[in-house]
Amino acid sequence: MEQLQAYFLVLDDIMDNSHTRRGQPCWFRLPKVGLIAANDGILLRNHIPRILYRYFREKTYYVHLLDLFNEVEFQTASGQMLDLITTHKGEEDLSKYKLPVYNRIVQYKTAFYSFYLPVACALLMAGENLDNYVDVKNILVDMGTYFQVQDDYLDCFGDPQVIGKIGTDIEDFKCSWLVVQALERANEQQLKVLSENYGNPDPSCVTAIKTIYTDLNLQAVFSKYEQESYEQLISAIEGQQSKPVQELLKSFLHKIYRTQVE
Amino acid sequence: MEQLQAYFLVLDDIMDNSHTRRGQPCWFRLPKVGLIAANDGILLRNHIPRILYRYFREKTYYVHLLDLFNEVEFQTASGQMLDLITTHKGEEDLSKYKLPVYNRIVQYKTAFYSFYLPVACALLMAGENLDNYVDVKNILVDMGTYFQVQDDYLDCFGDPQVIGKIGTDIEDFKCSWLVVQALERANEQQLKVLSENYGNPDPSCVTAIKTIYTDLNLQAVFSKYEQESYEQLISAIEGQQSKPVQELLKSFLHKIYRTQVE
Repeated sequence: MEQLQAYFLVLDDIMDNSHTRRGQPCWFRLPKVGLIAANDGILLRNHIPRILYRYFREKTYYVHLLDLFNEVEFQTASGQMLDLITTHKGEEDLSKYKLPVYNRIVQYKTAFYSFYLPVACALLMAGENLDNYVDVKNILVDMGTYFQVQDDYLDCFGDPQVIGKIGTDIEDFKCSWLVVQALERANEQQLKVLSENYGNPDPSCVTAIKTIYTDLNLQAVFSKYEQESYEQLISAIEGQQSKPVQELLKSFLHKIYRTQVE
Repeated sequence: MEQLQAYFLVLDDIMDNSHTRRGQPCWFRLPKVGLIAANDGILLRNHIPRILYRYFREKTYYVHLLDLFNEVEFQTASGQMLDLITTHKGEEDLSKYKLPVYNRIVQYKTAFYSFYLPVACALLMAGENLDNYVDVKNILVDMGTYFQVQDDYLDCFGDPQVIGKIGTDIEDFKCSWLVVQALERANEQQLKVLSENYGNPDPSCVTAIKTIYTDLNLQAVFSKYEQESYEQLISAIEGQQSKPVQELLKSFLHKIYRTQVE
């Protein structure tokens, strides 16, 4: 999973033309690396099946592990494609930023690999058939979505000292949960301000957007969403037959619920 | 195999900063594409396991097909890495261009996926165990090496009308078989001309290199190599126990032997 993450980050940074990652220059920015970084990303990726082969090739679940990683990688790359074509330079169009689009990007780009994949690996290694755990998958994908909404909220309203980064979603014309909510609630005048300022790195434009978010009381909208998501997730988890599965899912949920806000 | 090829070409063109591919602009050169092309390459790659899953998941050899594609992709990416670090801008160093380096790049970057992979797939689908076909693998890798040497030769000495492209190996500082042979045979004066002109796109520099190739009679060196390779390959093929395997390997060899020269 770390290899998969590393591989996606190396390639994402190239595609997003990013400058830093985890406080260091992006790999492709190093003078001796450049676009060779794309091949380095591929090499990181190629170590996934090598590790699986080395440690699990004799196991009955080996082929299912391979299938799982292949499926999840495809979903993640598809999510990345959706994200890239939505945010593409020169194709900016706020009218595309609706909740179903947002949810689809987040599910494919993030939730499958960071929430579903680790649990699915554990289930396979316990001898389970993933076809019997569709509910668990859906709960984990919803949890991943909730996690990303929280991340988007904190990008604007979080304390940089606490979250460890300075948010740039507004500057970058990101399909953030906040802008989706704002577009749903804005009046004509506010829509005009949004479309004229969103995606512009000028500080006065960023302030104009943040003012609209506050005027529309998106803090309260988020609190309500957070509370409802939590309740829905808990009730879905308690609907699971297996107690150990319930415990596992609850421990996941409590790792992400309101932790960064407090 | 076509997917694997397409995936590598899309990413290679980005890393080599190429302009055209098969007479069209490279995918990443299209204004609406750009570096998103890297993700499109990944998506092409992700279709390999999807195709294998769709058509072969019930077969006993399915897991071996997955392992084979994973191994060959890793070998190819490793070959690409060797090639990139050898040819890297700002790190040009002709003294690295020796035959073992050349052979390793060609084997990893080209021979495994274009010569070994298709035959290995056929063997798996016929119910064979690849561990029993190490000789066949070695023959196919040698055949791939021979094919690449011929390609390098034609890049300089072939008729562009016949081979369908204009060679630029000299301009691009490529670790071509010809420069490796020239460096082995050059006197001090010729070595000086080689190091001063190789990799320079100026036509007078290219001519200086081609003059040395001709002075060193590399055409005859190639003819001798070609003849010897052919004889070695035929004798290795005839050493194979299975007649159908012999026939298959010979048909491969005759597809590539001297075809482009005639």
